Order: sequence, then structure tokens, then C-alpha cells
Amino acid sequence: MIYTTLKRVLIGNPLTTAAAKYERLAKIPALAIFASDMMSSVAYATEEILLVLVLGGTLALRYSPHVGIAIGTLAAIVAISYWQTIHAYPSGGGAYIVAKDNLGTLPGLVAGAALLVDYVLTVSVSTASGVAAITSAFPLLYPHRVVLCVGCVLGVMVANLRGIRETGRIFAIPTYWFILCLAILVGGGFYHLLTQGPPPPPPKDVPVLEPLGLLLILRAFSGGCAALTGTEAVANGVQYFKPPESRNAGITLIWMATILATSFLGVTFLAHWFHIVPSAEETVVSMLGRQIFGRGWVYYMIQAATAVILLLAVNTSFAGFPMLAYLMAKDGFVPRQFANRGDRLVYSNGIIILAGVSCFLLVIFGGSTHALIPLYAIGVFSAFTLSQGGMVLHWRREQGPRWRSHAAINALGATVTAVVVGVIGATKFVHGAWIVVIVIPLLVMAFLTVRRHYDILARQLSLVGFSPPKLGRHPVVLLVAGIHRGVVTALSYAKAISPNVTAITVDLDPTATSRLRMQWQEWAPDVPLVVLDSPYRSVIQPVLHYIDQMEKQKDGAYMTIILPEFIPAKWWQHLLHNQTALLIKGALLFRRGKVAISIPYHLDQ
Amino acid sequence: MIYTTLKRVLIGNPLTTAAAKYERLAKIPALAIFASDMMSSVAYATEEILLVLVLGGTLALRYSPHVGIAIGTLAAIVAISYWQTIHAYPSGGGAYIVAKDNLGTLPGLVAGAALLVDYVLTVSVSTASGVAAITSAFPLLYPHRVVLCVGCVLGVMVANLRGIRETGRIFAIPTYWFILCLAILVGGGFYHLLTQGPPPPPPKDVPVLEPLGLLLILRAFSGGCAALTGTEAVANGVQYFKPPESRNAGITLIWMATILATSFLGVTFLAHWFHIVPSAEETVVSMLGRQIFGRGWVYYMIQAATAVILLLAVNTSFAGFPMLAYLMAKDGFVPRQFANRGDRLVYSNGIIILAGVSCFLLVIFGGSTHALIPLYAIGVFSAFTLSQGGMVLHWRREQGPRWRSHAAINALGATVTAVVVGVIGATKFVHGAWIVVIVIPLLVMAFLTVRRHYDILARQLSLVGFSPPKLGRHPVVLLVAGIHRGVVTALSYAKAISPNVTAITVDLDPTATSRLRMQWQEWAPDVPLVVLDSPYRSVIQPVLHYIDQMEKQKDGAYMTIILPEFIPAKWWQHLLHNQTALLIKGALLFRRGKVAISIPYHLDQ
Repeated sequence: MIYTTLKRVLIGNPLTTAAAKYERLAKIPALAIFASDMMSSVAYATEEILLVLVLGGTLALRYSPHVGIAIGTLAAIVAISYWQTIHAYPSGGGAYIVAKDNLGTLPGLVAGAALLVDYVLTVSVSTASGVAAITSAFPLLYPHRVVLCVGCVLGVMVANLRGIRETGRIFAIPTYWFILCLAILVGGGFYHLLTQGPPPPPPKDVPVLEPLGLLLILRAFSGGCAALTGTEAVANGVQYFKPPESRNAGITLIWMATILATSFLGVTFLAHWFHIVPSAEETVVSMLGRQIFGRGWVYYMIQAATAVILLLAVNTSFAGFPMLAYLMAKDGFVPRQFANRGDRLVYSNGIIILAGVSCFLLVIFGGSTHALIPLYAIGVFSAFTLSQGGMVLHWRREQGPRWRSHAAINALGATVTAVVVGVIGATKFVHGAWIVVIVIPLLVMAFLTVRRHYDILARQLSLVGFSPPKLGRHPVVLLVAGIHRGVVTALSYAKAISPNVTAITVDLDPTATSRLRMQWQEWAPDVPLVVLDSPYRSVIQPVLHYIDQMEKQKDGAYMTIILPEFIPAKWWQHLLHNQTALLIKGALLFRRGKVAISIPYHLDQ
Repeated sequence: MIYTTLKRVLIGNPLTTAAAKYERLAKIPALAIFASDMMSSVAYATEEILLVLVLGGTLALRYSPHVGIAIGTLAAIVAISYWQTIHAYPSGGGAYIVAKDNLGTLPGLVAGAALLVDYVLTVSVSTASGVAAITSAFPLLYPHRVVLCVGCVLGVMVANLRGIRETGRIFAIPTYWFILCLAILVGGGFYHLLTQGPPPPPPKDVPVLEPLGLLLILRAFSGGCAALTGTEAVANGVQYFKPPESRNAGITLIWMATILATSFLGVTFLAHWFHIVPSAEETVVSMLGRQIFGRGWVYYMIQAATAVILLLAVNTSFAGFPMLAYLMAKDGFVPRQFANRGDRLVYSNGIIILAGVSCFLLVIFGGSTHALIPLYAIGVFSAFTLSQGGMVLHWRREQGPRWRSHAAINALGATVTAVVVGVIGATKFVHGAWIVVIVIPLLVMAFLTVRRHYDILARQLSLVGFSPPKLGRHPVVLLVAGIHRGVVTALSYAKAISPNVTAITVDLDPTATSRLRMQWQEWAPDVPLVVLDSPYRSVIQPVLHYIDQMEKQKDGAYMTIILPEFIPAKWWQHLLHNQTALLIKGALLFRRGKVAISIPYHLDQ
């Protein structure tokens, strides 16, 4: 009861299946949900570029605008590619579906695995980065960042278990507030530059730790690619939109990409002009805000908005991961439980697993964004490539009007993102990309194993050519330790279900056994009582031995073992009795053709 | 399998019940087992006196010999009293039996509770003190004392799970070695005094923290009473001795008391003459050994023997506690599980519980002997008083030869120990005696509750006036979620056990349900299929609701619910299936007259 009440308070009352069609989203709250992931990467993408470039010293930091523009261009290509996908797959066209439909099962599973990993990492990275925004403003909290991270993930989990529409409503305000804050930051920064000119460069040069070369630039580029994460979410969630789904989702995607590119480039250029040098304890956005507005209320508002948007960005994954797991569960590649809708019409199991794995990563990596990022982008871009590659084949097969130009756009997207995968793989391999390279094949193997299990299961359970077993005079064995109302009741039950009943008892105490023999004659003269020896005082071993012996002479397909059990009136009274029946039932579970039945005799007090 | 192998290595192979009579003890190993507790108190009893007296300054320490002599006299009275008890109760006459037989159930239960508490505290105190002997010799280990304590308790637990005879053999050598070491310590100390005269008093006087008065002396006395703990063990364990049990046990008791009194008084007088001032980091025995022999091999040998005897003293409780729990379980005052003999003929549950509670206390009290002692003596002496008081009544009832002098001796024992209980209760109440004062009544209440449960149970299960229920055309409900081999098999089973079978299914997906209806017509046209609605997608709620509805129309005393279940071939495959059957079985357990049966269908791969 306490569990149920707690569940109701946290999750809300259950919703009927028929309520599902009302849980759709208009564009404004949809943008809030799906935008938060993509938008929030503005909070750390610039920083990831600078954290690599700074290794090349002050001179290297000058290349950040070039890297930024390259990423902006990439974002435009990917957005247009996905816009096409959304229109081609109005029922939801995530990389998994597109790759599976057009390239085959294996590429589909690779895309699915990459995306599941990506969702988990989105949760971890966004939480870590959101908490970094808080600890930048309040450095005293820095030592408690891991606890803060885990608390935030669990909070978002609960919000999602309540259901998607309410989370859309909750999250709409902070998302627009964050976009406003970014506008204030970038606008204020440019105003500051126009009115007061660029600030002087810092007196001390940053020491050069690595040579400035193409490799460093490429590594900075692959770090900054984290800006593009989240694009997939809209394509995966088309069916959450109000009809016409494709049109609404497509418009939302273009809005999002435009806002993202503008603010990311704005922050990157400002960081360059303000000579920002990245550090572990303070985020780049925090340093910018501090230089432009001072530690006043505008600064704290920007930090708060950043923290909130990042923590809510986590929500994108909480919408995307369970939906993808559901699609894969329907295809039999992940356990069926992921296809069950919970009380509030959400796929609860996916939500809970996502929260668990993300928390695990946050604890392992100490809540550090920079430590988690290398794991992140490679999965995302693998999925991009597979999805866009699949789309090229889709257009060629469909041969619709202007299919060549559609295919060309997706081919460009596939090529560009494939190059990015190569770059990330080559430059970030030792920093963590190898984990993803190992995890994705393992996941794909697991998907195939699960699917194989369900296929074999269906074959084993198939009714084709099956004839039901004959039970005949099926033997029933009644296990007795003494004689009382519960035993006599169980005996009646045994005689009611079969004419072939034997009682067995284990001889632990000769006095008690001979008393039982006498009483048995009185109460059940028609049922034979077999006494089993037990030199080592075990009850279970002789019983199992007897049952295995009997099996050789048994009549039908099943043998039934009846265990009289009295059920105490209060829970603590269970502690005062041996739990032998439970152990015997457990042991019988793994023996073929054995049915164990407890006949409960309920006590009144 | 791994569990079984580990158990065999630690505990040994199982013994047959018939082997029980060989597990008896001759006097020499018996002394080793039962002496270790009593003897080992020499290691801390003197220290407990000094730790109180030192509060009164240097002057107060001069009273230690007087307190010592008072305790020596008390030991003699208690030993003679118990010698009489052993002869009167040759089958084991612990305080529980004696008080219950002669004073009534309630005093018996109070004595039993006091003794159980005492056994637990013997383990805790002796372990703490044994580890203190080690850390006195090797001060570096002092910070790790709690871990050392817990490790020692677990070690003795494993030794006891192997069985009593082997522990007797293991423990004989160190006990006699310890007695030898005490002789060397006391002899060496007196030789030192005779040849070199008493050492000069320490230059600095101890500051006076409390006024020297009767209260301080009484508190010192009640601390020193810890020396008498362990006397009870022999009386409780008479039946472990070889025949003639009483004579052998009585002789062992007198030996023990003599050795104890001699060595306790020796250490107390030496501590006085050597001007020992007690401290938390080093034990009194260690200080004495160091002053007499220096930090040479004799000193280390004495410390080692002290540590070993104390850790082995723990063993007395591991013999006594399970035996007392067994006696009380046979009377129905503690759960029956304590009367089960394990694989090695020992009462394993008592052994494990004792180890668990003792470790808990050691952790809570940080492994400090001095913190645990106040909890200790009050329970011991309460049991002494009840036991001796019971003996007085015993003699009067028997009216045998010389009963008056027997009764007088026990009356003296009862009076003296009652005074001691009063003193301890008054002087140590705030230091922890209140815990025991609360715990003992709670235990007694628990005993009465358990007994009441078993009494009511026996009445509820009694066959007097009972007629077995009629099952009639007893209704069988088959729960189906689809149709496959497992379901068809379960259907055969259902039809075999009753002519009155109904199938029910929960409608979660209209398409699947209508397919099921069609297939059902083909496979089971003779069994009606009831489709239950489930607006909230729950399987369990509609099923339970239907069963509750049916109950009102049911035919016999029981209704059977059959759940087809397929058993995967590999354990991990369980994870790929919903565990609905388990939940339904759990829910049915608490409903009267419902029998839930899983019909297993074993898969091959």
C-alpha cells in the first residue's frame, strides 16, 4: 500500500489505453522537448573546441572561429538531410528504421545500438554539463557534483514516468527562457564589443603543450561535433507531433537548427574575441557571461538558464530511448518488457534502464563532461551516416519526382558524416572512442541473441504437429511432515484431482514417524504412506530422490507433488516456520514434467 | 554447486544423526572448552576494577586487593552453589531449566533471556579484550581493532559450524598454554618481588576525578564481577560430558573455579604491588608482563596466550547459546528453526545468530571492552540469582537427605548474587545496564508471543472435530495470454483434474484477442474462453477481480488457478520474459481457498 501510494504521488494516476491519442504535441511544446538537447549543446560545444586548441597554446586558440564555421556548415547539411528523412518517414524515421528498411537488418541494428548508446551519453553529458554550470556559479558545490548529477537524472526520470505531455508542458518555459538568455548573451557581447572594443589579450601566453597542426585542428573539430547531437531526436519522434506530423516535425527541425547554429557561432566568436582560455572549474559560457555582465543578476540568470536547459535536455533522451527500445522490442531484438506501456502510457522500463545506466556512467567518470564527450560523438555520427546512406537507397528505390536531387542531398550528408566518423575514430580513439567501438558490436550481438531466442521459442511453442500430452492415471504425491487440518485438506484436494495418490514423509524422528503412521491409518486408510529415510536429516534430498525414482514408473506426462502449507495470519509469523516447501518447489522447477502445488490452509490468528 | 563446495571446505562433510552419541567430551577437552570463558576473564577483570578505582586517584588504587578478595569469595560461593546444581540436574541444569522447573515459566524466561544476552556479550567482550591483548603488543594494529574483532568472531563461528568435538580438540592446547602462562606471570611476578623488592611508586600521582567513597568501591566491585562470567556454561552443558556426566562436570567446575580464583587474585595483587595505572591503549596484563619480563619473548608469549584464550573463550558461548536456544525452541519459546541440527549435528541457526548479533555490538561499541562490560555482568548475575533461588525450592520440594544444608548453600548463593545485581544495577545503570534492563523484558515478551503463536497454531490445526472440506465439481480457471504448446499442455492438465474448467484472457490488444478466440475454437471448443477488459493495461487486476467475482458462485472449498509457464533452457532467458505468473501467484497466496498451479513447459534450447 505504501509503495502504491508513493507511486501515485510521484507518477500520477494510471491512464487508460484509449487516452493515448491525446498525448500528442503541438509545435511549441514539441520544440521545447526536442530542442533542449540540440540547443543545450551550445553550453559545451565551444568549450570542447577550446579545450583541444588550448593544448597548442595561445596561437592555436585563434583557429576556433574556423572550426566553428566548419561545424555550422555540417549542422546545415545534417539538418537538411534529416528534413528529407522526416518527410519520407512520417511515422517516425529514426536511423534504426531507415537503416533497417533500406540497408538491411545488420546496419539497422548497428544504427540502433549507436543510438541507444547516444541517448545514454546525452543524459550523462548534459547532466554533467548542467551541473558544471551550477558549480561554475557556486564553486562551493564543485566537490558534490556527482551526487548532484545522480539526483538530477532521477528527478527527470520521475517526470518522464508521469508521461510525455506533462513533461512537454513543464519544459516549455525553461527552453524559451534559455533561448532568450543566449540572445541576451550574444547580443550583450556584440554590444560590448561595439561600444567598448575588444578587451586586451591576457598578459600571459598559454604554454604550448602540443604542436599546432592538422591533427590538433581535426581533434578540436571532432570535439565540437558534439554540437550536432540531438538532431536525430526529432526524426525518431515524428509520431509525437500533432497531425500533419511530418510537416510539423520538419518545421520544428529547421527552427531548431537555425537557432542552434546562430547561437553556437555567436558563442564561439565571442569566446575568440574575449580571449577566453578554457578551464576545468569554470565553463566557457560562465566566463563569457562574467566578462560581459559582471557577477550580477544577468550573469546568474544566464547560468541558471544554462543549467536548467541542460538538465532538461536530458529529457530528449528520456523521450527517444524508450521509443527506440519499443520499436526494437516489437521487432524482437530487445526484451519484450520494453514494449510494455506503464500506468501513464509511457514505456516505463526503457525510462528506468536509461536512468540507471546514465547514473552509472556519471559515477564512473566522476561527473566530468570533458571525460564523457569522447564516448559521445562517434555513436551519433555513425547513426547519421547509416541513416543518410539508407535514405540514398530509399530515393533510388522509390524513383519519385526529383529523386536524384533528394538522393544527392542525403548522399552529401552521408559522406560528410562518414568523414566525421573517421576523424573522430582516428583522433579520439585512445580518449574513449574505443569503448563505443566495443560496446556497439556487443549490443548488436545481444540484439541478435535475443531475436534468436524469441525465434527458437516460437518454433518450440508452435502448435504445428503438436498433440497434447496424455495424463492417464497421473500420479500425485502428497508430502506430509505430520498430520493436521492443513494436511487433511491437502489430502482431500489430492484425492479430488487424481485416483492415484501416494503420501510420503521423511523420517527425522522415529517417535514422531510412528505416531504419524498410526494417525494416518485413522485419517487416510485408502492412501499409502511411504516413509523415506534421511540419515543426514535433510528433507529435500530424500524427497527429490524418491520423485526421481518414481519418474521411471510413472503413468502419464506429468507427476504432481502436493505440499500442504499453512499461511500464518501475520507476516512475522512466517519467520517462525521452516520454509521447506519453498525450497522443494524451487528444486522441482528445474525437473521436467513435475507440477508442484501448495495447498494453502489460511490461519485466522 | 560453488556454494556447496565452499560449505564442505569450511564446515566439513555432513554427519549422520546416529553419530550424535560420539560427540561427547572427556574432562580434559571439556575443561578446555568451558574453562576458556571463565579463565579468560582474568585478562580483563582486574583491569575493570582498576579503571574504576583510578578515578579516585592513587590512594583509591590501594583498595584493589580488598575488592579482589571480595570477588574471590563470591566466586567460591557461586562455584559451590553450581556444583550442587550440576548434581541435581544431570541432564543439563542451566538457569533456564532450574528457574522454569522450580520458580515457574516467567522466571525461567527471564533467566533464559538474561543468559542469551550474556552469551552474546561474552562473545563481544572476550573478542574485544582478546584484540586488545594483540593491539597492546602491536600498537600499530590499534586503529584496525573493529575489523580484527569481526574477523575473529566469524572465524570462531566457522569452527563451531564444523561441530563441538573438533573445536574441543582445537582449543585444548591453547587453554592449557594460557594457564601455564598465567602461572609463569604470577610466579615470575612474586619471584621478582622477592628478589628485587617492590618497584618504587610512580613519581607522578594520578589526579583525583571522583571522591573515594563506598560508591566508588562498589562500582569497582561490580566491574570486577565480570571475573565470574562463564560459570553457568558448565551447568548448561552437562550433557556434553562423558558419563557419569554430573560427576565429571562437577569436578571440572571445581578445577576451573580454583584456577580462576588463584590467577585472578595473583594478577590483582601483582597489579597493586607493581603500581599499575590502567589505560585505554594497553591492558593491565600487558603492563605487568612488560614490567616483570621486559619486551622479550616471554612477554610476547603471554600476550599471545591471552589473545588466543580470549578469542577461544568466545567458543564457550558458541557451545552454550545454541544449546539454550534449542532447549527454549523445544519448549516453543523461540522459533523452531533453532531446534534443527545442521549438517554437522550442531544447531547451526543459533551459531549464526550469535555471531551476527555479537559482530553488530562490536561495531556499535567500537570494539571497546570497557564500553561493553557494563552491559555484561547484570544479565549474568540475574541468571545466577534466579538459578540459585530455584535450587532452594528444588531442595525443599525433594526433601532428600541433608536437604537443609544443600538449600542453605544455594540460599547463600542466591542472596549474595541478588545483592550483586542490586549493586550493579545501581552503580552501572547510566553506563549501559539500562540496555539490558530494556532488552530482557522485550525478549521475554517475544518468547511469550512466539509460544502463544505456536499454541494458537496447534489449536487451529487440531484435527479434533475437523471434517475435511468437500471439493465437489471444483472450479479450475486457466489463464491464457495466447495459444501455444505450453497452453495446450496446461489445458490437458486442467481437464484431467476437474470437469469444470474455464479459460480466461486479458484483452490488451484487440487484434491478438480476436486471433486467440479463433484459435481457441479450434483447440478447445469444449472449454469456455472468457475475455476480461483492462482499460489500464494491467494483467493482474482484472484476473484478481474475476476470481473474486467467481468465488461467490463457487462449488467447493477450493478454486484452482492454472498458469501455463514455459521454463527457458538457460537462466538469462528468464530476463526476456514478463514475470506475470509470479506476481499472480504472489497475489493469490493471500486469498483464501485459492490454489495457484504453474504448469511448466520445459524448453530444450
